[in-house]
Amino acid sequence: MWLYTSCDLTFDITIPTHFVLMLRPRSGAQQWVAREEYRLVPSVPAFEFTDGYGNLCQRLTVSPGHFALYTAAEVMTVDYMDRAPGAPFVDIQNLPDAVLCYLLPSRYCESDRFGQMAASITAGRWAGYDQVAAIEAWLRATIRYTPGYSDIPLSAVEINARQAGVCRDLAHFGIALCRSLCIPARMVVGYLEGLEPMDLHAWFEAYVGGRWYTFDPTQAELRGGYVAIGYGRDAADVAVYNQFGPPAYPLTQKVCVRRM
Amino acid sequence: MWLYTSCDLTFDITIPTHFVLMLRPRSGAQQWVAREEYRLVPSVPAFEFTDGYGNLCQRLTVSPGHFALYTAAEVMTVDYMDRAPGAPFVDIQNLPDAVLCYLLPSRYCESDRFGQMAASITAGRWAGYDQVAAIEAWLRATIRYTPGYSDIPLSAVEINARQAGVCRDLAHFGIALCRSLCIPARMVVGYLEGLEPMDLHAWFEAYVGGRWYTFDPTQAELRGGYVAIGYGRDAADVAVYNQFGPPAYPLTQKVCVRRM
Amino acid sequence: MWLYTSCDLTFDITIPTHFVLMLRPRSGAQQWVAREEYRLVPSVPAFEFTDGYGNLCQRLTVSPGHFALYTAAEVMTVDYMDRAPGAPFVDIQNLPDAVLCYLLPSRYCESDRFGQMAASITAGRWAGYDQVAAIEAWLRATIRYTPGYSDIPLSAVEINARQAGVCRDLAHFGIALCRSLCIPARMVVGYLEGLEPMDLHAWFEAYVGGRWYTFDPTQAELRGGYVAIGYGRDAADVAVYNQFGPPAYPLTQKVCVRRM
Amino acid sequence: MWLYTSCDLTFDITIPTHFVLMLRPRSGAQQWVAREEYRLVPSVPAFEFTDGYGNLCQRLTVSPGHFALYTAAEVMTVDYMDRAPGAPFVDIQNLPDAVLCYLLPSRYCESDRFGQMAASITAGRWAGYDQVAAIEAWLRATIRYTPGYSDIPLSAVEINARQAGVCRDLAHFGIALCRSLCIPARMVVGYLEGLEPMDLHAWFEAYVGGRWYTFDPTQAELRGGYVAIGYGRDAADVAVYNQFGPPAYPLTQKVCVRRM
Repeated sequence: MWLYTSCDLTFDITIPTHFVLMLRPRSGAQQWVAREEYRLVPSVPAFEFTDGYGNLCQRLTVSPGHFALYTAAEVMTVDYMDRAPGAPFVDIQNLPDAVLCYLLPSRYCESDRFGQMAASITAGRWAGYDQVAAIEAWLRATIRYTPGYSDIPLSAVEINARQAGVCRDLAHFGIALCRSLCIPARMVVGYLEGLEPMDLHAWFEAYVGGRWYTFDPTQAELRGGYVAIGYGRDAADVAVYNQFGPPAYPLTQKVCVRRM
Repeated sequence: MWLYTSCDLTFDITIPTHFVLMLRPRSGAQQWVAREEYRLVPSVPAFEFTDGYGNLCQRLTVSPGHFALYTAAEVMTVDYMDRAPGAPFVDIQNLPDAVLCYLLPSRYCESDRFGQMAASITAGRWAGYDQVAAIEAWLRATIRYTPGYSDIPLSAVEINARQAGVCRDLAHFGIALCRSLCIPARMVVGYLEGLEPMDLHAWFEAYVGGRWYTFDPTQAELRGGYVAIGYGRDAADVAVYNQFGPPAYPLTQKVCVRRM
Repeated sequence: MWLYTSCDLTFDITIPTHFVLMLRPRSGAQQWVAREEYRLVPSVPAFEFTDGYGNLCQRLTVSPGHFALYTAAEVMTVDYMDRAPGAPFVDIQNLPDAVLCYLLPSRYCESDRFGQMAASITAGRWAGYDQVAAIEAWLRATIRYTPGYSDIPLSAVEINARQAGVCRDLAHFGIALCRSLCIPARMVVGYLEGLEPMDLHAWFEAYVGGRWYTFDPTQAELRGGYVAIGYGRDAADVAVYNQFGPPAYPLTQKVCVRRM
Repeated sequence: MWLYTSCDLTFDITIPTHFVLMLRPRSGAQQWVAREEYRLVPSVPAFEFTDGYGNLCQRLTVSPGHFALYTAAEVMTVDYMDRAPGAPFVDIQNLPDAVLCYLLPSRYCESDRFGQMAASITAGRWAGYDQVAAIEAWLRATIRYTPGYSDIPLSAVEINARQAGVCRDLAHFGIALCRSLCIPARMVVGYLEGLEPMDLHAWFEAYVGGRWYTFDPTQAELRGGYVAIGYGRDAADVAVYNQFGPPAYPLTQKVCVRRM
């Protein structure tokens, strides 16, 4: 499936502001970026680097005034994300070094506090993919998905108290539950074709059977049409725009995903 | 100052357990490791890798039974850690790429929740070193340092509620306050000569004036005698031993630091 | 200056062939990639990774038959590359760790064999930028630039014997001479507006005065219009396409660079 | 097998000299460093970093005068290095990203010039381990091993002309031959118990059957007793001491390896 994606952001900048952006998708196992566009208006010098998770990030300093970002891509994605019922749990000693950090608790995924809950949710399942699938199903059935604006990110503990959340919150909760079972899990931010209402999306991946698999508790069923932009331990690592000091909220944020 | 350090741990292992250890100090700006010892009893195959923060980590799988780790080092450390009153705040755009991650909130340092408190604690101070010194002084005066055993790590929010904590907790709080002012801050775990009671220690570093400086709210005054073992965003990244699955608590943990 | 660049390659593949491509420019200090296109015909699964020099590389396996790569970009580049006569030599102890590897000899830059020649070429120059400028001028005056096809890369020693070479050869020679003076130097492959005849281009950078500067012995004078695709120690590290086993030579290679 | 290793170097330094040292072995798959010593006389500030190949390197600046390095280690090594006749060639597309760089030609391993020779040496062998074993046997039988002092490193092409060389030279030749068959190969520098005459040693590893295997054309037969200090593409990357500018040759170099 070929997708056209775009994300346009406009800001009213009041003081010189340094942004760290993460809006350039990379080609990977399940997506090929065939065309890409990234415009800054006004144009400012920007520097690109690869962060510790392999994401391409852009650093730039914006002067006061109106500032706009226009990004777009044409991406070939798979029609159906891979699933692997029965894929086994990977013993810790067999995990690649670089995967170990996805076992640790992180800002919004207090996996050190969910051991019992995760055990109970996954009781009777084969260790590995089936446990994660049980977590995904439990989240889908239990935590109300309330798409829309959320002012600040919430953590798994907070979502568990509130029993509702946006896509990012459900991903955090899923990640925390996986890690508490010693299953590496990470956050993904990107696009999903057909998302209602259309916006940037967040989901999670779990490492079982020797590779990463996609899970998305906000959708009735896993299908295709995903375009990943960034990966990290949780939303603290994967902000499509990060800026430090007084927050600069976007005036407008317009996301578009359509089949080509 | 030459220091002899040692850390011996013994465990009763009940099921095959994979450990990720971080007990090998590295030579750095303020310390030279002249001699080092690292014994595993019984001997088991171990693999060493460098994690994303530059720490040397050892992976090994231990069979059920008694297991002991004996580590020791002879390290030349500085007599006085560098201080730099007046060292300026580094504008975000001038921070090295690799330092940016120390601005983000992390598991035990919810810097996204402390903006106002940090501003009030540092009111009237020059941006940079003097702000961090004010935070350190405030912690020293306000949060009761209660050395000793703590069962689970607590976060800055929790320590703020409790107004007391172990060294790790005070470091987390200091880091969260620094980051909320856009000052990069990181956790350090290691040894401190003269610590009472003797144990492993934790403190923090802040990036001002173009380099990292040491801060320790648990001590009346910053002196020398520090030996760093590991660095990270917070205690989730810097565990001297990490093991996954049912926790294996040490039967005994014996730490020694003395002048040579 | 806004440039449109494109590089199209077609191959006749006779056996399944694994390619490692390096054809995706990144935004950096002196260039911003605003638009980019990368098509594979026929489409095949491709995986992208960042190599040890920070280059984006694409791995893909092509089946026998016709295979074509179409890449294009719209890039904002500077009108004049920075020059810095007088910029000082950086003492080795002040070089960043990551720059040290550009002091070492490499496949096509036998810097361990050019100490005397480099000293003689740069006699009387201030250590640093002016030495590199003297090397660039010497190459321009001495080594005949013979643009066109070259079957295999030659090393600095070979070019010195032959006294003529393509852009890549002159860059190798320049790099070898710089390194023999303990000035870090690296290869750059990319595009140059106005190159005659138009083709992919190679030049080099030297690290003096605390940053990398561009040098190009093939041009009468350094101007703007450069778009970097890849960096490395020499051509062994920076091949726009690398394939292993029986070589797959492009049927056609069409490069275009024009002002927008 | 437990080994005690030591390497002591003394220098007469005439001008301030920056060294990059690689003398700290790391624990790995086939060795565990249980005790280690590293003394600088006189003591000077030193900084440690991990290079692009995972080696621990120490940077330090030495003032004019006498300078001595004393390093020692107690290492558990395997009694017999793993061999794997029949282990298959790994198709390029299945090689880990980080292994690809060991396919490229490098300063002393002009693998781009040995395709025919390698094919002829390995004619009739199964692709993979058996090809490398054939190369090792051919080197053993053909290239005279002349242990002892060699003033400058020679490349595979030069060794092929000379038909004799020190351990480093044979390793370079072996690496070049492997790479020309698309088998990743890398240089190892370290210690070998029982080496005659005792000195630092060099050998090579090839990546077949999904992992690195050790080969040593200087020994009649592969046994145990190896302690690796550094890895790289060739000797340019793996110098136990590297210094830039006028060379500082050791006054004395004393290497000791004995069973404990």
